[in-house]
Amino acid sequence: MNCSKRVSSMQASPIRKLVPYATKAKQNGIKVYHLNIGQPDIKTPDGFYDVVKNFNEEVLAYATSEGMPELLEALQAYYKTYDMNFEKDELLITNGGSEALLFTMMAVCDPGDNILVAEPFYTNYNGFAQCVNVEINPVTTKAEEGFHLPSKDVVLSKVNDKTRAILLSNPGNPTGTVYTKEEIEMIAEIAKEKNLWIIADEVYREFVYDGLEYTSFGNIESVQDRVVIIDSVSKRYSACGARIGSIACKNKELIAQILKLCQGRLCVPTLEQLGAAELYKTPVSYFKEVNDEYKRRRDVLYNELMKVDGVICEKPTGAFYILAKLPVENAEDFVIWMLEEYNKDGETVMVTPAEGFYATPGLGKDEVRLAYIFKEEDLLKAAKTLADGLKKYMEIKK
Amino acid sequence: MNCSKRVSSMQASPIRKLVPYATKAKQNGIKVYHLNIGQPDIKTPDGFYDVVKNFNEEVLAYATSEGMPELLEALQAYYKTYDMNFEKDELLITNGGSEALLFTMMAVCDPGDNILVAEPFYTNYNGFAQCVNVEINPVTTKAEEGFHLPSKDVVLSKVNDKTRAILLSNPGNPTGTVYTKEEIEMIAEIAKEKNLWIIADEVYREFVYDGLEYTSFGNIESVQDRVVIIDSVSKRYSACGARIGSIACKNKELIAQILKLCQGRLCVPTLEQLGAAELYKTPVSYFKEVNDEYKRRRDVLYNELMKVDGVICEKPTGAFYILAKLPVENAEDFVIWMLEEYNKDGETVMVTPAEGFYATPGLGKDEVRLAYIFKEEDLLKAAKTLADGLKKYMEIKK
Repeated sequence: MNCSKRVSSMQASPIRKLVPYATKAKQNGIKVYHLNIGQPDIKTPDGFYDVVKNFNEEVLAYATSEGMPELLEALQAYYKTYDMNFEKDELLITNGGSEALLFTMMAVCDPGDNILVAEPFYTNYNGFAQCVNVEINPVTTKAEEGFHLPSKDVVLSKVNDKTRAILLSNPGNPTGTVYTKEEIEMIAEIAKEKNLWIIADEVYREFVYDGLEYTSFGNIESVQDRVVIIDSVSKRYSACGARIGSIACKNKELIAQILKLCQGRLCVPTLEQLGAAELYKTPVSYFKEVNDEYKRRRDVLYNELMKVDGVICEKPTGAFYILAKLPVENAEDFVIWMLEEYNKDGETVMVTPAEGFYATPGLGKDEVRLAYIFKEEDLLKAAKTLADGLKKYMEIKK
Repeated sequence: MNCSKRVSSMQASPIRKLVPYATKAKQNGIKVYHLNIGQPDIKTPDGFYDVVKNFNEEVLAYATSEGMPELLEALQAYYKTYDMNFEKDELLITNGGSEALLFTMMAVCDPGDNILVAEPFYTNYNGFAQCVNVEINPVTTKAEEGFHLPSKDVVLSKVNDKTRAILLSNPGNPTGTVYTKEEIEMIAEIAKEKNLWIIADEVYREFVYDGLEYTSFGNIESVQDRVVIIDSVSKRYSACGARIGSIACKNKELIAQILKLCQGRLCVPTLEQLGAAELYKTPVSYFKEVNDEYKRRRDVLYNELMKVDGVICEKPTGAFYILAKLPVENAEDFVIWMLEEYNKDGETVMVTPAEGFYATPGLGKDEVRLAYIFKEEDLLKAAKTLADGLKKYMEIKK
């Protein structure tokens, strides 16, 4: 029995495929610090659980396909605090940011079309695109330049007659890069000149450090007919397991088309939507506290990495990832070595090889992504262990 | 800004597109009995809510992509009661039966491939197929024959070199037809002869009346390498809002491929999975009670329909739908007339025109789907109102 080419040719998740090595290390009694996954340890706000636990209907019925009014209203109010004014029929609730991205790709691309994406990018963009026969058209960014965008000419040179959209995650996963206002405006100009959609993955919108200015595509007036904003409660409120995402777009025709996809899958879970509505009412002070925490963690991890000769990365200013170039030939070999051969006082560290975050073959081979999602004390231990392991590995490979 | 052809060409949900007429009737003070939607009024078993309300983790974290062990085990045990023995790595948990169907289509078909489907069929099959550029290849069944399958030769004549699978909902939605063992075996033979996958949508497995024998594709030994079973808690446990579905398949390669799609969207909601695990532990006596209730409802609705001259349908033996041929030229006009022009003592009835359940143009124009999802007393009133309206409509159109 044959499977389709579109799924057969998909790569396995680079974030998950080395998990068996970690499992084996643990079976051998080694403690593994997981810097490889973006699962935050921050407490989910109580409001979510309160609402879910007070649910009192006898029948757990379908919700409306576009999303429940409670959640749509809360999302509307949330956007208003950022000066983005969406009507209720300009919003759709989805099964996580994942479904929001998949549906948006389906709605703007036919098979063979492509989407411009700044690489390295969130690896699952690849999967969403491939399963609907859309191509990722990568615009390469570099560790040495803090993963900021190349010039307008370089970006323009990548646009071809099958290009339908530009997809940008801001702040970037896996780079932690916060794009400048000038970069956002450049992309907006290109989109207008080339008549492209802009898919703005802004799920890390609040995770911006060092007092940096953040520019959302939702605030660039001239492209509001072509901007699709993807959001999610997963990282924003540490509610990854709720799987509540959303699409916001002032182009009502696009929303009407995506609504057909939403109607096809009937609805998003009722309880999770009610809980998410409460999350979106969380006071802004919550983000301040969480940001302070993540900023401290970033500094701890970054400072330890910088103590190793040959590690290249600018200090990231957003999200909770560091993408670093290591002085190794093959980062995957190093990650496996850390799990199979190395430990310091019975402890080791797992990170993610970055090759899978690139579409251009050969790129990212010497890079890894690290997520700073632990409490400072543990993170410091993990960072020191990683730095020590890296030094030892370099000595062996010399 | 242009949307993709694949979404632009999708039809709006035939189940939902007439809702504005119902809304207007209600605004005019008319009570509308909704026989148009499959939302049961049966109480969701307490176990679901108990588990959700006792959830006690501080962080609502991602679950594993394939599904949580608690739910996979409960599902395994459920299948065992039907003599179907699935390993845990032969099961995947999905966002409703909807995602299970979408992922299965992606995994067995490339763009341009087709899937054989007995029509009339669950209308969202159309949407899932279209958004991934797969074609529905319809095998027509008829009201006069109780929507049973045509001969093997007729089915075989529809298979072409782009056909990858046969998709059958058993019991059928919208037909309520329970296929005989002979029909199931015929499909199995065709699948073997033509090397096709069998996608068995068995979400209504327990809703079989009149002591009829039910044959699952999961019990046909000779095709276990090619059968993909789609299930859901929505109708089975009246938990439509939980959005928990599943894929079961003994072809581990197919499961491995679909797992990549599952990993792409990370996971299904944690709380809903824990709740669904409890649902699958519901004692079998629950189904007996629920079935008795639905059987009574079916009889009430069927008997009233049969009192109208010219209505054609065999008594359905499964699910909770009746698909009836009406003595009208255009069922959609009749449905709209019932909402706009008709009422009996301030009450009217909404049903679903069946044209959208067919892929062959022109078919189903004089048919409607009715869902018997109310308590007997209300259903009787609704059925009598519908019958009265139909008679009046026929007089006017004479």
